[in-house]
Amino acid sequence: MKQGNRYGLHRVLEPQGTMPQPAWRIDNTMELYSNEILLDVETLNIDSASFVQIKEAEGGDPLRIGEHMKKIVAERGKHHNPVTGSGGMLIGMVRAIGPELQGKLDLVPGDRIATLVSLSLTPLTIEEITGMDVKTGQVDIKGQAILFESGLFAKLPDEIADRIALAVLDVCGAPAQTEKLVKPGDTVVVLGAGGKSGLMVLCQARKSAGPTGRILALEYGEASCERLRELGWADVVLNLDATKPVDVLQAVEKATEGRMADVTINCVNIPGTEMASILSTRDEGTVYFFSMATSFTAAALGAEGVGKDVNMIIGNGYTKGHADLSLNLLRESKQLQALFEAKYGM
Amino acid sequence: MKQGNRYGLHRVLEPQGTMPQPAWRIDNTMELYSNEILLDVETLNIDSASFVQIKEAEGGDPLRIGEHMKKIVAERGKHHNPVTGSGGMLIGMVRAIGPELQGKLDLVPGDRIATLVSLSLTPLTIEEITGMDVKTGQVDIKGQAILFESGLFAKLPDEIADRIALAVLDVCGAPAQTEKLVKPGDTVVVLGAGGKSGLMVLCQARKSAGPTGRILALEYGEASCERLRELGWADVVLNLDATKPVDVLQAVEKATEGRMADVTINCVNIPGTEMASILSTRDEGTVYFFSMATSFTAAALGAEGVGKDVNMIIGNGYTKGHADLSLNLLRESKQLQALFEAKYGM
Repeated sequence: MKQGNRYGLHRVLEPQGTMPQPAWRIDNTMELYSNEILLDVETLNIDSASFVQIKEAEGGDPLRIGEHMKKIVAERGKHHNPVTGSGGMLIGMVRAIGPELQGKLDLVPGDRIATLVSLSLTPLTIEEITGMDVKTGQVDIKGQAILFESGLFAKLPDEIADRIALAVLDVCGAPAQTEKLVKPGDTVVVLGAGGKSGLMVLCQARKSAGPTGRILALEYGEASCERLRELGWADVVLNLDATKPVDVLQAVEKATEGRMADVTINCVNIPGTEMASILSTRDEGTVYFFSMATSFTAAALGAEGVGKDVNMIIGNGYTKGHADLSLNLLRESKQLQALFEAKYGM
Repeated sequence: MKQGNRYGLHRVLEPQGTMPQPAWRIDNTMELYSNEILLDVETLNIDSASFVQIKEAEGGDPLRIGEHMKKIVAERGKHHNPVTGSGGMLIGMVRAIGPELQGKLDLVPGDRIATLVSLSLTPLTIEEITGMDVKTGQVDIKGQAILFESGLFAKLPDEIADRIALAVLDVCGAPAQTEKLVKPGDTVVVLGAGGKSGLMVLCQARKSAGPTGRILALEYGEASCERLRELGWADVVLNLDATKPVDVLQAVEKATEGRMADVTINCVNIPGTEMASILSTRDEGTVYFFSMATSFTAAALGAEGVGKDVNMIIGNGYTKGHADLSLNLLRESKQLQALFEAKYGM
């Protein structure tokens, strides 16, 4: 059996010398290296920005969406959307564990896991698409995947349904980072608060900011806003288009009496919302970009362009304990459970 | 005279409702609004990533580079490179100040200033290109520009030559952010240490980390590395290609005996160096991306893909006092002066 590199470098086909994520194409032959894990894939959870792009390109037709997905995997050896640059994650059953890893991990063949690394670097094959939820981007397949030695994963908890655990784990970096950033008494603006990551962030922000904190939830569309108001986590719910920075600026100015946000968290899954995030934030405050639709240059030049001294953070999908924190957040909050069950519980 | 918006919204042509920076096209007619400043432009300092892209597209031919630049401005009303998304800055003489701003600013017509906001949001006309330094991306023109009310600027200091002041001010966010991030005793990795921002960052990192700090400078090419060794600011100079993350990882591991960097600052002006930055940094360390060639998704998914819990910051070109800090750094360091004089002093 061949020995593989910790970070999966042995799977990179082109360009040579890059890591699996930025690589255009990786080797998805399902022959195991000594430090890899082979998985039988059950469900792909396509990144929201990526799935929205594919869905729009294919007019919402599930068959065409499926063909589009297969084409990406055939071309790149991974489900790495070339337009959005993003991936997603998967649920699968462990089929084989390379001998180098045996005994080092709390894992045996037959265990069911969710991968916590992006599909954009995961060797994948799709034999067949067996089901698709076009609303959520959860796609059931017959296929296989490889997890590298450095790849993060979470064993699926028995008491939480798979689809719900997957949906939670997919965005578990966001609430975990929120927990690190938000201090008691902070004013927090959450953009895209009604989406999957937005709801988790909102729930954690309320918890971290405490009763003296002030939470503003921004969402687009009156129905979504009404649902957020019913949850009661936010002090203010604003029905606004986050691609309209001037509208957002004026609404946040009004709601905070000019104080603006200590921490702004962007969970909007469409492009063009960098400036609304920056303008919502006070001088020397923090903007946390969790959205994969964020443009680096739009953020960097945007802040400079309006002379705003804010700390802008790139959302890192991983921080220590992120999976446990998120699953515990779900266990603690009956409301969050109900929301995820309604949306992802079949 | 018409009244303009503080952030220049009145100049946005398409798409409507966006800010001037993300807008595809802005109005560059040189008719002054009541809160604008009109400038006679002398020199454009094109952003390094942008100029390298244009230069490569035009085979290094100054005439073709000039035509390319004029075409960008004709199409967009600003020098906003559609490929790199970045701009640059300019030097000009104040020709007129809108009545709303008169008396509020320490500025009169005839003053010479450098704009500290990006060319990617600055209304600009180019009548004629009168000179070009293809090595540095400084381009002399006959033309005009508009500075919005929110636009930052610095009056040019008498004792520092224009071209040098412009070169320093263009990257003044980087050393100012370095000063905020680097603590005494820190291990700091600077990628692209031999470039303009890299040199300023390196100088400031040495100052901030102090004698107990450890500074690693990475640069590509033996000649550049030899110059860095002569400066003596770095404890270790490594001749490495920052697009090769594995090489960088191994070299930094060796030089720090596995400790890795507390703070990594990326000043490389080519794409594909996110992963080298992430891998150079210790768990819970900070990566500061100053390079405009940074890809948001490559950074976000890259860190997740290798399970690295690092704080990743988007380089904000503006932080309070950034112009003064940078000009003072130059005044303090004879070596930095000599470097900038050799490179930008005509």
